[in-house]
Amino acid sequence: MIKEIISAISSGKRFLITAHVRLDGDALGSELALAWMLKDLGKEAVIYNQDATPGHYRFLPGAENIVSELEHLDRYDVGFILDCSELERIGKIAADVTTIKTLINIDHHVSNGGFSKLRLLDPKASSTGELLYRLMRKMHVKLTEEICTNLYAAILTDTGGFRYSSTHPDTLRAAADLVQGGASPQWISENIYESDPPAKLKLLSRVLETLELDLELQTASLVVTFDHLRQTGASMEHTDGFIDIPRTVKDVAIAMVYSQIGDNQFKLSLRSKGKVNVEKIAARFGGGGHINAAACRIEGDLAGIKARVRQAVKEL
Amino acid sequence: MIKEIISAISSGKRFLITAHVRLDGDALGSELALAWMLKDLGKEAVIYNQDATPGHYRFLPGAENIVSELEHLDRYDVGFILDCSELERIGKIAADVTTIKTLINIDHHVSNGGFSKLRLLDPKASSTGELLYRLMRKMHVKLTEEICTNLYAAILTDTGGFRYSSTHPDTLRAAADLVQGGASPQWISENIYESDPPAKLKLLSRVLETLELDLELQTASLVVTFDHLRQTGASMEHTDGFIDIPRTVKDVAIAMVYSQIGDNQFKLSLRSKGKVNVEKIAARFGGGGHINAAACRIEGDLAGIKARVRQAVKEL
Repeated sequence: MIKEIISAISSGKRFLITAHVRLDGDALGSELALAWMLKDLGKEAVIYNQDATPGHYRFLPGAENIVSELEHLDRYDVGFILDCSELERIGKIAADVTTIKTLINIDHHVSNGGFSKLRLLDPKASSTGELLYRLMRKMHVKLTEEICTNLYAAILTDTGGFRYSSTHPDTLRAAADLVQGGASPQWISENIYESDPPAKLKLLSRVLETLELDLELQTASLVVTFDHLRQTGASMEHTDGFIDIPRTVKDVAIAMVYSQIGDNQFKLSLRSKGKVNVEKIAARFGGGGHINAAACRIEGDLAGIKARVRQAVKEL
Repeated sequence: MIKEIISAISSGKRFLITAHVRLDGDALGSELALAWMLKDLGKEAVIYNQDATPGHYRFLPGAENIVSELEHLDRYDVGFILDCSELERIGKIAADVTTIKTLINIDHHVSNGGFSKLRLLDPKASSTGELLYRLMRKMHVKLTEEICTNLYAAILTDTGGFRYSSTHPDTLRAAADLVQGGASPQWISENIYESDPPAKLKLLSRVLETLELDLELQTASLVVTFDHLRQTGASMEHTDGFIDIPRTVKDVAIAMVYSQIGDNQFKLSLRSKGKVNVEKIAARFGGGGHINAAACRIEGDLAGIKARVRQAVKEL
């Protein structure tokens, strides 16, 4: 299969690259690295994403060229669908993209059943970035500094900073080669993880006061209210990553953040360690997600909501 | 020099291993990995530390055998002083340890002037753990699961989770080999970073209230006092990692934590981004470290100390 993909790259002239909505570091780093490689090979490569690039990924080389509007999809010889287990995950162009004759799907999600004829799938790979690294090695293309930086960002973020079980020896060897090729671990980490506004820390300080531990059920929760935002000058997007904080407590199996979204409504975000399935809790309240990460919206006063969630955890 | 060290290992029978006070992951992981290697070679190896092993490092294989009392130092053939730029950093046995005929210092601190005849020093190494990895490779000893786990923990923690500029291609290649040899990135990370007592989050909440940003000098600081510990039931070891929090603010070049260590004395921990050299600041107050991570002890009242540090940053 990889030979057919290389042959499609070799014969194509105009390439479209896209990835899933709600962009993350793996989607963006993979798209950009692939675009750089194609351009270095003298091809035309356009990256389309439905969603805007989040602020902390705008430093990635080439990010300024990503487009969010597309016309004439049929002008592309090849369409790359990256980091998607289903075609629908790319958003509103999902139907039209099938007018491109050759679609290539590169992905590492376990649930990927294979929606395109040409595909490079490996659920054991840490990231789509790692799969692209393998492909580029196979093609003997030059791993430029731009490519290395983007692939390193992809691998770094999708392994949670080399912390998840998907961090294999080959993952770290790929990372080593990418650093050798010009990726700066410090600069990349600083841009992704250390570019928060001061208001975020002020918000964190207030929110940590709401920490509640339930040792019986092994849960830990935080609450973010409109009042907290007003008091600190922060906005709801600054709560990104807060869910990882109650996780750090020993013996906590489920971490929860209740974020106010209305006068009488909260969004509940859930994360679990190991085999605890929080998707089931979210589903009880009409939400969804995966075994270790899920979310839902619940109406009511906070005390009442917490009591209902506690009951749902008990019945898990 | 490395040949003489290998020869001293080969001819010695009884080995003492120690490291600096205020133990960190590099000190402990290095000590333990070395002890495992020596025992695998049929030697006697005793690890002595003045301070107790912090809770989140007690999972490290062999940590239960570390002693905090020593008699008859002259019975050891070789004494390993790890991760210390000065002999005094090992604490109260510093004077007596010189009764051991052969001392070997393995360290990566820039400020290390070389206090022992036998030494393996490289300020470019990410960690003492990486230096031991090199030594063991040179010796062709088997990297057992216990050795790999300890060395991985050493490298992981001293690179801030592979984020500091000290993360070189060889650092990541060493990490890859260690994972291949049985180190589990997920298990090690969970034990070190996600096994905190609830009191740590309570302490963090209090300490975040002390956040001070100096936009002119691009510094951000936190303060931890004895009062904070009393109020939250936490201990000073729970401040581990707090220094990384002011770092997350955009445009902060230097992160600082002032930790009270006496009625009128604070330890200042410094971390910098990019090429800002905080070792120079620490050196001004008689401390040491590396370009991006350094520490010192300063006497006086907090306001006076902060003013002196501010001046030192200005003159950087």
